[in-house]
This record gives sequence, structure tokens and C-alpha cells, in this order.
Amino acid sequence: MKKFQILLTPAKIASELDCQTHFINKLKLNNVAELQEADENSVCFFENPKYADILKTTKAGLIFVPSDFNINGKPGTNYILIDKPYMNFIMLVRKWLQLDHPQTKDIIASSARVAKSTEIGNNIAISHNCVIGENVQISDDTIIKSNCVIEDNVQIGKNCIIHPNTTIYKDCIIHNNVIVHAGCVIGADGFGYLYHNGIHHKIPQVGNVIIEDDVEIGANSTIDRAALASTIIGKGTKIDNLVQIGHNCKIGENSVLCAQVGLAGSTHIGNNVYLAGQVGVAGHLTIEDGAMIGAQSGVSNTIPKGAKYFGTPALDAGLQKRIMISKKFLPEIVKDYRKRQKEKDPK
Amino acid sequence: MKKFQILLTPAKIASELDCQTHFINKLKLNNVAELQEADENSVCFFENPKYADILKTTKAGLIFVPSDFNINGKPGTNYILIDKPYMNFIMLVRKWLQLDHPQTKDIIASSARVAKSTEIGNNIAISHNCVIGENVQISDDTIIKSNCVIEDNVQIGKNCIIHPNTTIYKDCIIHNNVIVHAGCVIGADGFGYLYHNGIHHKIPQVGNVIIEDDVEIGANSTIDRAALASTIIGKGTKIDNLVQIGHNCKIGENSVLCAQVGLAGSTHIGNNVYLAGQVGVAGHLTIEDGAMIGAQSGVSNTIPKGAKYFGTPALDAGLQKRIMISKKFLPEIVKDYRKRQKEKDPK
Amino acid sequence: MKKFQILLTPAKIASELDCQTHFINKLKLNNVAELQEADENSVCFFENPKYADILKTTKAGLIFVPSDFNINGKPGTNYILIDKPYMNFIMLVRKWLQLDHPQTKDIIASSARVAKSTEIGNNIAISHNCVIGENVQISDDTIIKSNCVIEDNVQIGKNCIIHPNTTIYKDCIIHNNVIVHAGCVIGADGFGYLYHNGIHHKIPQVGNVIIEDDVEIGANSTIDRAALASTIIGKGTKIDNLVQIGHNCKIGENSVLCAQVGLAGSTHIGNNVYLAGQVGVAGHLTIEDGAMIGAQSGVSNTIPKGAKYFGTPALDAGLQKRIMISKKFLPEIVKDYRKRQKEKDPK
Repeated sequence: MKKFQILLTPAKIASELDCQTHFINKLKLNNVAELQEADENSVCFFENPKYADILKTTKAGLIFVPSDFNINGKPGTNYILIDKPYMNFIMLVRKWLQLDHPQTKDIIASSARVAKSTEIGNNIAISHNCVIGENVQISDDTIIKSNCVIEDNVQIGKNCIIHPNTTIYKDCIIHNNVIVHAGCVIGADGFGYLYHNGIHHKIPQVGNVIIEDDVEIGANSTIDRAALASTIIGKGTKIDNLVQIGHNCKIGENSVLCAQVGLAGSTHIGNNVYLAGQVGVAGHLTIEDGAMIGAQSGVSNTIPKGAKYFGTPALDAGLQKRIMISKKFLPEIVKDYRKRQKEKDPK
Repeated sequence: MKKFQILLTPAKIASELDCQTHFINKLKLNNVAELQEADENSVCFFENPKYADILKTTKAGLIFVPSDFNINGKPGTNYILIDKPYMNFIMLVRKWLQLDHPQTKDIIASSARVAKSTEIGNNIAISHNCVIGENVQISDDTIIKSNCVIEDNVQIGKNCIIHPNTTIYKDCIIHNNVIVHAGCVIGADGFGYLYHNGIHHKIPQVGNVIIEDDVEIGANSTIDRAALASTIIGKGTKIDNLVQIGHNCKIGENSVLCAQVGLAGSTHIGNNVYLAGQVGVAGHLTIEDGAMIGAQSGVSNTIPKGAKYFGTPALDAGLQKRIMISKKFLPEIVKDYRKRQKEKDPK
Repeated sequence: MKKFQILLTPAKIASELDCQTHFINKLKLNNVAELQEADENSVCFFENPKYADILKTTKAGLIFVPSDFNINGKPGTNYILIDKPYMNFIMLVRKWLQLDHPQTKDIIASSARVAKSTEIGNNIAISHNCVIGENVQISDDTIIKSNCVIEDNVQIGKNCIIHPNTTIYKDCIIHNNVIVHAGCVIGADGFGYLYHNGIHHKIPQVGNVIIEDDVEIGANSTIDRAALASTIIGKGTKIDNLVQIGHNCKIGENSVLCAQVGLAGSTHIGNNVYLAGQVGVAGHLTIEDGAMIGAQSGVSNTIPKGAKYFGTPALDAGLQKRIMISKKFLPEIVKDYRKRQKEKDPK
């Protein structure tokens, strides 16, 4: 249950929506919750018929329900009847968060170490113990939370949030509306060595990382800088926790990389690609636009546009599914095969 | 070899144990060690007959051995003869650590940034550069090590240790006797988006994380806050390094999640479940009490109580084992199959 | 494109190389780049014939090419003709970096918290908000970047770089020329419990971690301290990002562990071993010298010297490859098998 300091009435909430209402009493709502944990001051939503049983017993004060919802079944509650109740509920939560926490920015904590050559926009916040290097640019409305380290020459665009304990190595570029969760490391050296006389000689990694608009990066993920040129995360792509992006990868727009995905170096991921959890992708490959790769798959070849693949090595999902079903017969088939071999050659 | 500042004699050690002794000389013991690295001031244990050879050559000063150990084989050493020598050795190490490092707490470092509204118990330590937000509660005997960030409204119970560079996002709740290793991120936003018109719209994540008593969380693990309600880690559950727990997961009591396990969102793990290293579990599933899942398995279905499963997709261990053995015959079977097909239809 | 502050001429670059030159104009070079992003002040290399098309259109000012390169094909550019152009290009980048950033060391930031008992060598740098515990030793020419926590009794050798937000637990030992990337956790407690009466009792982890010369460790990797004795990373071994090394592992010299590899406890890895990305290795195993393990493999048995294995469970690469090819016939074979069974016993 998320409690807010600002109270809302059902009427106030309804006034900003294209909806019908069924209000039976006056309430001061102060939280959003799941149906089962709700109290009389909670706003909830109901969309999936699977939860109809929970709906019967919830104490929620106000429930967003579908336009065609039959109120007669449980009349003693306040309802907002609306198309897409879940999406509209989410929009309410967003607005309520903004009402509740008007950003008090334009603050640089006295404990933050900001180099004099740093250029800082308006309405920004740099919190405790941040270390901001030389020639860094931080644009308007951006928040750097506590204990982050931003090295020399980094550029951070407008309206970004960098969560605590994040490290951004020198020269990296972050565009606008980017969210970086705690503990991320952006721009560490790519994993590149020249093997010579039994020793791995480090190849200097002098490229950078570029993160385009509207990207979100999950906690403790790592995105390595390019050897030369740039590792690029395209606009609107969403990256979950503990993901590894190797040097010189280029990821397109609006792709999704679930938790613990790993990309080796120089791999290209298209637009609208979906990589499920723990997928590994070898280096120097391409996964084309719109491809979907199932969880834990190991991709060792280029994946064509719009394809659905899974398994290790990743195969077309239809074929892989048939193989997986067939595998269960394998012990039986082996038995039969060995029997037949014995019949042929009984020794 | 772990050296202690406080010296112990064999007699002192034996005095607190239900054991027999065989002491041949006087010693001031100052360390615990493995048999092979031990010196004359070391305390060691011997329980597994596999290491009998090492026992012959060890220089250890005092060795915990089983009650039925035959001292005649190597008489020139000091022994404590006891049931469960390893467990009793471990208990000694624990006590010795406490003797050696009486916690000097009740210290808040001058460099720590603690909001005035924070409530702090007795005998706590908050170390250098910690940032503690508004309305945080930290109970008695808890230690927050250097460079941690604890955001607003977090509650931390009694006798916890939060290791360095950890981030705990706002509103999360940690009960008593919890250990969080360095670099963990607790309460980052769950990975939730609504896809609409080609764009992933962020779903606000306004729930929290609740970590119950006696949980230990390994280094750099990430536990995401719930979208609504709570992500819950049950009492006594142990989580290794680099583990990912998605939003709204609920894990029962005394379960074990080995390193690099990943749980997608809204999955339920029962009590006494064992997930070996690198296991991945899809979202919205249940792994019932006492189930054991082998390393690297990919779980895409509910796992029944007490079952042993492995593989991707995870299958009953007995069946999976038969399949794995059968797989080795597969090239031969394919050859035979193709030969037979050719015989039927020689073209 | 990596820009340098110090400018170099083609003649200056050539003067330190055993090469032939083809210079057509005078340039002040100020960056290194990939061929496709280069400008007239860029130094590039060309070695792989696959990029011949890009060579035709590049604007690069100076290109390292093979000794037998035919300049007539594109005469209007400056060339250095040399054996191993890529390796020589890399050597140039290294030297240029050194010229450009002469380390200004011998600095301890005023915000760093360094215990009085710490022993510090010459020409070191300890940056902002670092916390350095009691009895730590830091040798000559080592750099500790911002917001690192180095606990009591840690020893760090000469010429090391510890990147930001890293945590090194007490008693760990790091030798010379070691690079630790941001967010690493070295020396957290190994994952060891005694299960007794339904509860997991923590086994004190009182060993340490030893990291030998010339090791590099990628961002957010975790290396656990030994229960007793030491977890050891051998000389020259390179570890990528998000790698997990369990307690009491011993890794030999010049091995390579790619991103997201996980080793359970007490496993031994030899010299010159290669573990590709996301490989998992069970505990108490040995991977012998020179073995190569393919990506995502699950190793559950000892791997012999020089062997190539992959898959889960990891098998000899030749056999595994045959199995993988055979798998595609499996649905067909099952169909055939079931047909034959029906013929035998039509019910």
C-alpha cells in the first residue's frame, strides 16, 4: 500500500477522467493498493476476471472497473467505470506522485564534490557525496542521487534520474529522460586483450557509451565503453537489473532486455527486440528488428526480423518446441534402438 | 589463516565443550586454519576421512576430531575429541570473533548525513559517508557500514549489518538479524511497462520490499520493489551474490537461492526451497515447499511440493537424467534412422 | 572517437616504429577512431579485408596498414605500412594516453577517511569519499578512485587502479598492477551454512581473497572470501563484468572468465583456461589447464587438460555438436518410432 500525504476525493479523481461514476459515500482517499490489502481509503483497480473473488471481499474505498462492469453484484462500493481501468489507474498514480512530491530541486549538497569546470543547468539536484569530474555537463531538471561518481567529460541531458552509488566513467553521454538505477556502472573498460606470448595484453578502451532518450537501466547493470567509437543504447529501450552489455554493442529503439541478459562485444540488436531473462548473445551478431528470444536462450547466429527463437543454441521456436516435446520420448527410443541393434547382432 | 588478537589455551577452549581431551603440551593458540596451512598456534578440525593424508603432515597445534578418533595414529598433537567436530569448531570461531572484536558501536561518523527525523536505537553504528533519509528507523545493535544510502521511510530492525555501498530505496522494511552484503540494491523499481503505440510507458512502482528476520543477502544482489503491495523475502532465507528478485515475488522461509539466480516478477517460492546457481524462474509461477531445482535450470511451470527438477525447461530429475543419458545415443540413432529411410525410399 | 589534448604528427608517430611511410600532407593528429567515424585528424588502422569498403570512404588522416598494402588503390591518404598494424595501433593508443594524462598523483582527497594506521606508498592517489580502514597498506603508484571502501588490514600492491564504488572487505590482499572496475565486491562472506533443525546457521567466513599480479576484474563482479584459507585469483587472469567467484575457489594464471560466469565454492580452475559468457561451474571441481568451455555451459564434472567442452551438462565439443545437429531430426524420429510402435501393436 502506497500512502500519499495529499488526500483525494472520488469526485476529484473522476473530474479529470472520461468515465462514469457510482459513488455511494464521501471519502478522503490516501493510498493506492492491491485489492486484497486495501482499506477504506484505498484506490484500486479491477480488470482481470481472475481476481473476481478478491473483488468480493476487498475493503477498497474506490475501484476503477471496466465500463461494462455490473455494479449490482457488489453495490456497496464506490466505482469509476472506464475503458482500460488499469491504464487509467496507473495514470492516476503518476499524477498523485507528482502532487505529493513536487521536486524540490536546484540543490547541490555541500558534501558533493563538483569540479569548477562542470556546467550545471537549472532546477537540478546533486545529492550527498556525489563526485562530479571536470567538464561534466548536467542539464535542466536532472537529479543525481547520493554517492554517485560521474567522471570527467560526461554529459547528462535533461530530466534524468541517476540513482545512488552509480558510476559513470569519463566521456560517456546520456541524453534526456534517462533513468539509471542504483549501482549501475556505465562506461567501464570493454573486455579486450591481445594474446601474445602467453599473456593477455590489455587493449586500451578509449571509446564511450551513448545512452539515448527515454532509456531506463536496472540496478547493478553494466554497460561497457567501446574500444573505439561508441556502445549505443537506442531511444526508449528498457534494460532490467544485472544486465551486461559488452563493448561496441549497438541496441536499437524500444527494445527490452530482461534481467541478467548478457551481450558479448560488437553485437547489434535492432528495434523492438525482446530478450527474455538470462539470454546470452555471442559477439559480432545481429538480432534484427522485432525478434523475440526466449528466456535463457543462447544466441550464436544472426536472428532474422520478427523471428521467435529459443533454446541453446537458439532455434526457431516452432522447431525448438517440437524438439523439446520429442525429447521426452528419447529414453524409450534409445531402448528400442538398442534392442533392435541386439537383434541384428546378438554377439 | 585467521589470526585473532586474543589468545586461547586448549584448556580454555575445552572448558566450554562437552568433550574429551588429549593435550600433550601448553600452547597459546592465536588462529584458526585449514589443516594444510596451519602452524603450531592454529586450531583446526578433522572430520572427513578424505583428508586423512593432510592430517598426517599438518603442523596444527590443536585439532577437533570425532569422539572415536584413534589418537595412536598421530599422538604428538593436541586433540579435542567431540561429536560433530566441524560444528563445534565453527561455534568456537564464532565465539572467538566476538571475544576479539567486541562491537564498539553507538557511533555515528561525522561524515554520515543523517536526517533529523531519523529514529535511531541504542548501540548502533553508522559509518562514514552514509546518507540516511527522512523518517528512517534504525533499531538497536544495527551497523550501517560506509557509503550506504538509505532513503526516506526505510525501517531497519535490530542487530542488522548493512555492508558498504548498499542502496536501500525508500519505504523498504528490513526486520531483525538481517545481513546485507556490499553493493546490494534493495527496492529499485520493478521492470514494468505498458506497451502502447510502440512505446514502453513506465508503470509507477509504488510498493516496497519487506525482508524478514535472519535473512542474508549476498553482494551486488538486487531485489526490486513491488508495483503495488510488497516483494517479500521470508524469515531465514539465504540469498547468494548477484541474485535478481523481480517485483512482487514472495519467497517463503528458510529457502536458499544460490548465486546468479533470477526470478521474474510475481513468482512465489515456498519454504525450504533450494534453487541452485544460475536458475531462472519465469513470472507468475509457484515453486512449492521443499522443491529443489538444479543449477542453470529454467523453470517455466509450477513445481510441486518436494519435487526435484532440473534442465531447461525444468523436468522431473529422474526423467531429465534419463533424457540426458539418452542424448549421447542420438547421433547414432539419427544415422540409423536415415539409413532406414534410404532403404525404404532409395530415390 | 577518442580526442587527445596533445597533438601528434605522422612523422612523430612513425619515428618510434619499425615501418614504412607514405605521407602526402602535413597533419596535426588529435584522435583515434574507427574508419567510419574518422575525420582528417584521426589515426585509424586497417587489417581485416572485410572492412575494405569502409577504407574506400574513410576520411581518416593517417591509417596503419599491413606492410604489403597496395597504396595505389587509394593514394590520397597518409599511411604507415607495418607488420601487425592493429597491434602497433594499440601500442600508439597506449603511449598517447600516457602523454595526455601524466598521472598527477600523491594526492589524498580531503574528504577521504584514511585511518592513521594506514601505510601509504609514494605517488599514490586516494580520491573523494574513500574510506580506508585500520592497518591498510597501499603501495607506490596505486590509485583508489572515489567512494571506494577498503576495510581493515587490506593490502594493495603497486600500480593498481581501484575504480569507484568498489568495496574490499577486511584482510584481502591485492598484488601489483591489478585493475578492479567499479562496483566490485571483493571478500564478501562465502555462502556457507550448516543446516540444523530446519534452520541455516551461518558458518563464519574468516579466510580472505588473494588477487595476484596483473589481474583485471570487471565491473560489479563479486569474489567471496574463503571460509578458512584463501580464495585465489592467479597472475594475469582476466575477469569480465558480473562474474561470481565462490569461496575457496582457486584460479590459475592467465585464465579468462567472460561476463556473468559463476563458480560455486572450492572449484579449481587451471592456467590458460577459457570460460565463455554465463558459464556455470559446480563446486569442488577442477577445470584443468588450457580447457575451453563454451558459452552458457554448465560444468558438473572435472574437465581434462586442453579439452573443449560445451552444453549443460558440458560434454566434449565434438560429441555435443553431433548431438545438437541430431536434435533437429528428433521430431521426425519420434514420429517414425510411434508409427512403428502402432504397427506392432495396433490395439
